[in-house]
Amino acid sequence: MEIKTIECVPNISEGREKSIVEKCVDEIRSISDLKLIDYSSDPDHNRSVITFIGPLEKVKEGAFQLAKKAVELIDLNHQKGTHPRMGAIDVIPFVPLTNATMEDCIQASAEVGERVGRELSLPVYLYANSAKSEDRKKLPTIRKGEFEGFDEKMKDPRWTPDFGPNCKHPSAGVVAIGAREFLVAFNIYLDTINEAVAQQIAQGIRESGGGHRWLQAKGMLIQEKNMVQVSMNILDFQKLPLYRVIELVRLEAKRYGVSIKETELIGLIPVQAVLNSFAYYAQLPDLKQDQIIELKL
Amino acid sequence: MEIKTIECVPNISEGREKSIVEKCVDEIRSISDLKLIDYSSDPDHNRSVITFIGPLEKVKEGAFQLAKKAVELIDLNHQKGTHPRMGAIDVIPFVPLTNATMEDCIQASAEVGERVGRELSLPVYLYANSAKSEDRKKLPTIRKGEFEGFDEKMKDPRWTPDFGPNCKHPSAGVVAIGAREFLVAFNIYLDTINEAVAQQIAQGIRESGGGHRWLQAKGMLIQEKNMVQVSMNILDFQKLPLYRVIELVRLEAKRYGVSIKETELIGLIPVQAVLNSFAYYAQLPDLKQDQIIELKL
Repeated sequence: MEIKTIECVPNISEGREKSIVEKCVDEIRSISDLKLIDYSSDPDHNRSVITFIGPLEKVKEGAFQLAKKAVELIDLNHQKGTHPRMGAIDVIPFVPLTNATMEDCIQASAEVGERVGRELSLPVYLYANSAKSEDRKKLPTIRKGEFEGFDEKMKDPRWTPDFGPNCKHPSAGVVAIGAREFLVAFNIYLDTINEAVAQQIAQGIRESGGGHRWLQAKGMLIQEKNMVQVSMNILDFQKLPLYRVIELVRLEAKRYGVSIKETELIGLIPVQAVLNSFAYYAQLPDLKQDQIIELKL
Repeated sequence: MEIKTIECVPNISEGREKSIVEKCVDEIRSISDLKLIDYSSDPDHNRSVITFIGPLEKVKEGAFQLAKKAVELIDLNHQKGTHPRMGAIDVIPFVPLTNATMEDCIQASAEVGERVGRELSLPVYLYANSAKSEDRKKLPTIRKGEFEGFDEKMKDPRWTPDFGPNCKHPSAGVVAIGAREFLVAFNIYLDTINEAVAQQIAQGIRESGGGHRWLQAKGMLIQEKNMVQVSMNILDFQKLPLYRVIELVRLEAKRYGVSIKETELIGLIPVQAVLNSFAYYAQLPDLKQDQIIELKL
């Protein structure tokens, strides 16, 4: 049971040519023990997001092979889209799941980064929890200037890559590789049709509004439900557990005499996120993943 | 992902001869894809409980092979212990886990029962959710008279077995096989040292006291914690979710001005039991096992 399982969510700068996306995704399909969870392409963004999970070593291999294929097939000199991008393979995040720690993912990102730099001649910036300095933590900071600007940007010694050559790949640009927490998308519906209530709550609780770290939030009216919604991304569910988000919104909603009608979890969630919050409500001081019988298999 | 996973918790009537217990457990160890979760022997009871999980078909095979070994090695004519028993292999419960239904386990119990009756010449009583009549649902009713009494008991046509010969096996007796829900052992600690409070709450909420079905409860003082405990078995966590037990105890404790200090989950728990209760507190109308990323593997 000591198999370390992690997730990888590479983004490639191709969201229009289906055959290219499929060839990249095939690299994941062809590795045994890897499970392709999802992939989706946005033609406007001209970008695809691929999600797969598996044992640490296999995920590293899958990430490398997918990067290799993207470098081979995608030429950023001819790529246009609304999403900012700096590389054919733009970003490779590693996310800890069962039995794996953030440290494991940081190490995985460094190993894959080293190999990508060496074998693909692609400059690599370690980002998020893998970043070696504060100004490389956030993706938009690294990506600034995009593919076209990197010839100039890399002349600045502050932007020497962590791995690979000190000049951009002529067609594939550069890539960011790093370890981050699983991103939880969670919505709370409120018993009102007053959109301003949801917006004010969102404004008050999100990091950018001076609220909670790790929280992105916006308020909007959901016509078909006849309710407003506080729509949220939780960037680190370990530091900001779901129960705290729920109870924070409940507390703020009271100011307007409004209550929580229901909630909604978008997509997937790590079991630990559920355990953390169940343990809070159940007043369990200690609830470990290895108490979940299905995870014993 | 459509592999049906179930649990099996056979009880054998041997808790003293370690070599015999090991030989029985080896039958599980030797089948690939089966995961031995736990086994423990009680010398006073002279009984061992073995817990294993795996894919439905493999679990059926494991249960049969373990029964065969127990019939071969354990002679109830020479067995004494404080726990009532009617067979060398006394009871074989099947429990649904991921992707498996109670119906799957009922069918598994019937198939294993048929094979045990035919190949081992052991009379089989289907019990719990597999029982064909009301008086065969509960184990103590079936087991009444124990090994020694079954020659007489089986003369009564009401005790004709569901499978196998209509007379007890000379050394291995008879066996009960059936499908049941996972048993959750859950304790709630109260902020008082007044044992009577825990006892009165337990008395009020348990099935035998006129309280909730599927609930066994007793109250006791836990010296080392300086608290009292309501100690519970939840026999069907689908029909009696954990959150209802917690909130029921909280409600009853209010009568005594007492609150819940902490709770405790003993051993393992199916992920669905956690999801059910998390969904209640989070007001999630819908939270499915296939939203848990680790269960995708």
